[in-house]
Amino acid sequence: MKKTLLSLAILTSFAAQADEGMWMPQQLPQVAKQLKAAGLKLDPATLTKLTEFPMGAIVSLGGCSASFVSPQGLVVTNHHCVYNSIAVNSTPERDLLANGFLAKTLGEELPAAPGSRVYVTEEVANVTDQIITPEVAKLSGKARIDAIEKNQKKLVSECEKDAGYRCTVASYYGGLEFYRLKQLEIRDVRLVHAPPAGVGKFGGDTDNWMWPRHTGDYGFYRAYVSKDGKAAEFSKDNVPYKPKHVLKIADPAASAKEGDFVMVLGYPGRTNRHRLPSEVESTFTWNYPAFVQASGDTLAIIERETKNDPAAKLKYAGQVAGVNNYYKNRKGMLTSYANSDFLQRKTAEHNALKAWVNANPARKAQYAADIETAEKLIAERDANAKKGFFLGYAQPKFLSSARSLYRLANERTKPDAERKTGFQERDMPRWNSIVAGQDRTYDEKVDKALVLHFLTKYNAQPANEHDAAFDAALGIKPGMGEAELKAALDRIYAGSKLANKEERSAWLKKSPAEFQASNDSFIKAAVAMYDAGMKEEAQEEELAGKIQQAYGNYMRAKIAYMNSKGQAVYPDANGTLRVTFGKVTGRDVGADGTGSWTAFTTPKGIVAKHTGEGEFNAPAAQLAAIQAKDFGKYVDPKLKTVPVNYLATLDITGGNSGSAALNSKGELIGLAFDGTLDSIISDWDFNKAMTRSIQVDSRYMLWNMKHVDKADNLLKEMGVQ
Amino acid sequence: MKKTLLSLAILTSFAAQADEGMWMPQQLPQVAKQLKAAGLKLDPATLTKLTEFPMGAIVSLGGCSASFVSPQGLVVTNHHCVYNSIAVNSTPERDLLANGFLAKTLGEELPAAPGSRVYVTEEVANVTDQIITPEVAKLSGKARIDAIEKNQKKLVSECEKDAGYRCTVASYYGGLEFYRLKQLEIRDVRLVHAPPAGVGKFGGDTDNWMWPRHTGDYGFYRAYVSKDGKAAEFSKDNVPYKPKHVLKIADPAASAKEGDFVMVLGYPGRTNRHRLPSEVESTFTWNYPAFVQASGDTLAIIERETKNDPAAKLKYAGQVAGVNNYYKNRKGMLTSYANSDFLQRKTAEHNALKAWVNANPARKAQYAADIETAEKLIAERDANAKKGFFLGYAQPKFLSSARSLYRLANERTKPDAERKTGFQERDMPRWNSIVAGQDRTYDEKVDKALVLHFLTKYNAQPANEHDAAFDAALGIKPGMGEAELKAALDRIYAGSKLANKEERSAWLKKSPAEFQASNDSFIKAAVAMYDAGMKEEAQEEELAGKIQQAYGNYMRAKIAYMNSKGQAVYPDANGTLRVTFGKVTGRDVGADGTGSWTAFTTPKGIVAKHTGEGEFNAPAAQLAAIQAKDFGKYVDPKLKTVPVNYLATLDITGGNSGSAALNSKGELIGLAFDGTLDSIISDWDFNKAMTRSIQVDSRYMLWNMKHVDKADNLLKEMGVQ
Repeated sequence: MKKTLLSLAILTSFAAQADEGMWMPQQLPQVAKQLKAAGLKLDPATLTKLTEFPMGAIVSLGGCSASFVSPQGLVVTNHHCVYNSIAVNSTPERDLLANGFLAKTLGEELPAAPGSRVYVTEEVANVTDQIITPEVAKLSGKARIDAIEKNQKKLVSECEKDAGYRCTVASYYGGLEFYRLKQLEIRDVRLVHAPPAGVGKFGGDTDNWMWPRHTGDYGFYRAYVSKDGKAAEFSKDNVPYKPKHVLKIADPAASAKEGDFVMVLGYPGRTNRHRLPSEVESTFTWNYPAFVQASGDTLAIIERETKNDPAAKLKYAGQVAGVNNYYKNRKGMLTSYANSDFLQRKTAEHNALKAWVNANPARKAQYAADIETAEKLIAERDANAKKGFFLGYAQPKFLSSARSLYRLANERTKPDAERKTGFQERDMPRWNSIVAGQDRTYDEKVDKALVLHFLTKYNAQPANEHDAAFDAALGIKPGMGEAELKAALDRIYAGSKLANKEERSAWLKKSPAEFQASNDSFIKAAVAMYDAGMKEEAQEEELAGKIQQAYGNYMRAKIAYMNSKGQAVYPDANGTLRVTFGKVTGRDVGADGTGSWTAFTTPKGIVAKHTGEGEFNAPAAQLAAIQAKDFGKYVDPKLKTVPVNYLATLDITGGNSGSAALNSKGELIGLAFDGTLDSIISDWDFNKAMTRSIQVDSRYMLWNMKHVDKADNLLKEMGVQ
Repeated sequence: MKKTLLSLAILTSFAAQADEGMWMPQQLPQVAKQLKAAGLKLDPATLTKLTEFPMGAIVSLGGCSASFVSPQGLVVTNHHCVYNSIAVNSTPERDLLANGFLAKTLGEELPAAPGSRVYVTEEVANVTDQIITPEVAKLSGKARIDAIEKNQKKLVSECEKDAGYRCTVASYYGGLEFYRLKQLEIRDVRLVHAPPAGVGKFGGDTDNWMWPRHTGDYGFYRAYVSKDGKAAEFSKDNVPYKPKHVLKIADPAASAKEGDFVMVLGYPGRTNRHRLPSEVESTFTWNYPAFVQASGDTLAIIERETKNDPAAKLKYAGQVAGVNNYYKNRKGMLTSYANSDFLQRKTAEHNALKAWVNANPARKAQYAADIETAEKLIAERDANAKKGFFLGYAQPKFLSSARSLYRLANERTKPDAERKTGFQERDMPRWNSIVAGQDRTYDEKVDKALVLHFLTKYNAQPANEHDAAFDAALGIKPGMGEAELKAALDRIYAGSKLANKEERSAWLKKSPAEFQASNDSFIKAAVAMYDAGMKEEAQEEELAGKIQQAYGNYMRAKIAYMNSKGQAVYPDANGTLRVTFGKVTGRDVGADGTGSWTAFTTPKGIVAKHTGEGEFNAPAAQLAAIQAKDFGKYVDPKLKTVPVNYLATLDITGGNSGSAALNSKGELIGLAFDGTLDSIISDWDFNKAMTRSIQVDSRYMLWNMKHVDKADNLLKEMGVQ
């Protein structure tokens, strides 16, 4: 599982089974019986309190999860979550990625990658009534969306008056409920320790989403604040943040055992458990296959265009890794889907819900029309998406930039509170850094080859599926062949200076009039496309507003229906704090050709996979320790060796990376970092028999720190003797 | 498992267990009871007759095994055994490797790669008494080796008077017995059919030696002879060879099932089951680790030197593949060795043998001294090998060529019968082709970098471990640093024209005097090193002769000892026809993190592994057939799908690739093509619980031929309806 950029899952969510779930902490009393039965020794009520133990120790890194493990602000998460911070501190002469890094003192700690954050959630409040006020409830379409956004911004702005905090209003159950999260935004984050890539990334992309697994996917940050305890930019005068609560690392004897209770606390990004049958069908029969095809094309084109250009190859390495990751993910889901009866089940459940609604006149009056409306509107939205699919890929990178910049210029003419979300003053530091860095991941010939490929596909669509403003701005017409399209691209690329960093950044501060007066080809195109774009956005918002209204009521029906069957309903993941629980266990079903999966892997598998190069290159010191059976107190009595990774029935997804896995007493027994390929369809369809999360065992982490990397200072700090 | 170049396993062999074994066909009556108990329905005696069914259908390709499957000389073997023949017929425009190949008529068949052969064994005779004559029995040292070689050559020469035959005298049980094999050498071999690499090489190097496996490792040749039925060079007038016997392809209902009897008939290359404890120790604690280190260095240097030189990279692709293959193999064995008590068991067995010998005065008098002598002499041989290890890697490629060519010139001054084996007229076609082709796998900067690396290591050895003639010829001295060594290499490389094909080939016909008069630096060095080289060879032969004498008697003791315990003893593999039997079965022990291995894999695993690129790129037509469940009659009733590959307890090794796997009635149910990595130590130490061979299921082959590649013409020819 790769680090996921979380976006709020606006307008998605829904109902659930009792033996799965990413529960909001405050919901846990609803499943207290199951928690106790599963083996939890803590009072479930304690888990509802965000500022008490253990919840108070759980933090977000924005895309990854993590936990405090010392009173000095030491944070443990996955190696792949601190990866960029290791990379930016590496040089050919001092290759921290390859060799690992250990600060022996506070003074040796290194600034994390720019933009690294530790978010400590201090407050979660249900603000539904402040978002969907009686006035808003009467609105529909774009007016409703605008009003919701206005209320969100107001709540955020009030909350952020408290300096050093980042506030978010998140939507739950597809817009049925809204919560405001107030998070301390720690901006001075430092890299403390990471094992060599041969441990932390052992198995690389080949083993990504695979079992058996042998990855030491752990790393350490430290959170720093100003001397008066406030969030602050990096300063050498800053001091370690003192968290209110920290997790205790479990003793070896209390660590993971086959069949044990385990729970994971973290920030899962996005799931789709509550979607309509039509959304399932559209996704798995059109969207994902189209995405897989487009991703394959993208990878092949980048490969071809950068073959003899190492500098360009390097520029696209990040995009290639990202596309590859989702490519494998989506293909895995498609395989699972092809072998499942998911759509039939989904349809049957939906029909049962509708039958339940229609069986009672009051319920029918309350829900039936909205359910039908939601179905119709969502089909409309999906059809629009299909029409615009290739267009999304066919825009030159700096045309997209130009369009964003011109939008920004227009938004900046308004008072801050009235600007569109994402275009406010609070967003400017992000804008500056993104726009400045765009050429680091850009090569004209690669960009043009990608655009030409997808433009040709776009242009093969019927004329009524074309975007007239786009066609006019680029000077293209339906029926043009590849050569003509290429000539059009050559013209527009040649006419722009946006590839130049200074030229580009200058537009961040220019007025709409200055854009309108420009001769830069991409800026001109952006201006020309603006009105049509705004109109399209308004149409989308009109539709979104209608969907929000109908969908929310549909979700209300679903919750009522599930509750009528005695089942609690957790909302789909949306990047907020959740709890999932299950047990440590292998699986009866292995991969084809294997009989089963055991719960644990061991160092034996590291030695077997080690090739001494590439993705399977364990450090010599680790191999020597394995060879010498120098396992100290971290030997599992049953396995007779150190456990490396283990499987559990936990319900996680992207964003959970780095999440603390806790035993029944709330002690840390590992870090979740991945799921298996044939269970990632659980983002849509949780299958208890197949779904397994993968954790790095805390004993493996401690053993490697103690016996291989000699990180005694950190073990001592964490109270590990 | 990659194609193995078989060399006669001179001076190796020995004793065995009843539940393993690569049996000589004539030995099968000794294990008739076990064969019957295992489920064989044929009379074991029929398997002893090489020219009857089924043995008459089994052929060697020289490095691979194969079988006749139609009266028109159609031969089935592994895809990796016909790989070069596909490659030489491929062009960028017509990429047969990628797309596969199917001749729909005889006329469409393509000539196999130059040098391709089908060897039909027609006669195997015990010639021990003609090799170790009473006169030879009295000899020792070099005189003994020379006399044995003389007798071998005489027997070969007499036999090869029958035109079109290739004859070999092979040593068994470490020189205790000798057999002469007379094989029809079919030289007109044509490529008939091979699936796309996405089937035949599915999984590539990543899956090599791995389970679960999904490789369609099959391909077809046809043997052609002249109109009068004689072996002949390629001619369009040639006709398909009519084998006396062909294998019947088993009906789906009679194909492999879990627990079934299975046997494999083929030509295993080399095993080391009968080695002394000291040889085991020397191999696993010194030779293999040194080999692994040197191979890793070699791969890294080739990678570094060819990084920006695609042409050079291509030239070394074959060497890289070969080194990688053995690198993985040897590392796999070292891992198994580290986790085993092999040396202790070996030592205990050896001590038990010695105790048995010493317990009886007559036995003691007959064997004890030779056992001790063998131990001593072999230790001496191993010490010499250690001393010469780096020197073997430190010779420039064209210095080695020059030395061989000068040796050839000297041998050619003698009458043919007196020349050293390998330097006779019968060997000249091979010499011509090897010498002509050497620059296709040579790049000066790569060769020099490799030589410099190992020369530096050689030069760091103590002075008394240096080869004085080598040092003098290259102008190097102990103590020289890398820069000086590099300068010496620059000089000698610059002074030679042997990299030029015509220059090099011209030396094939020159006299010793012409060599002595040459100014070519490598030729001069070869001449200067000649006398010392011959002296060293004579010393090696002196030692080998002594070893042959003592080892043979040691082996005689071992056979007597094993027979006294009621156990038959099969000789170590030596490239001759053998039979192994066992059963189709998975394994309780999987790889780390998996509980077990099932006996069969299925198309589900192909879909799961398929990435659409590189090594995991199944053809679209196959994926579509899988998706459509278009499996026809090839569905296994228990698996409910087509079986792809299966495991069995068969005792095979390199050279067995392509071997027919037969059911209890002698019908073809698959082709052996690999073993699993943690069982390749079986070349030394057969472990019944772990050792598994991997076969491609005949149903997968037939299904893919019928439903994907539409090879109906071949199915009809093989009598498959």
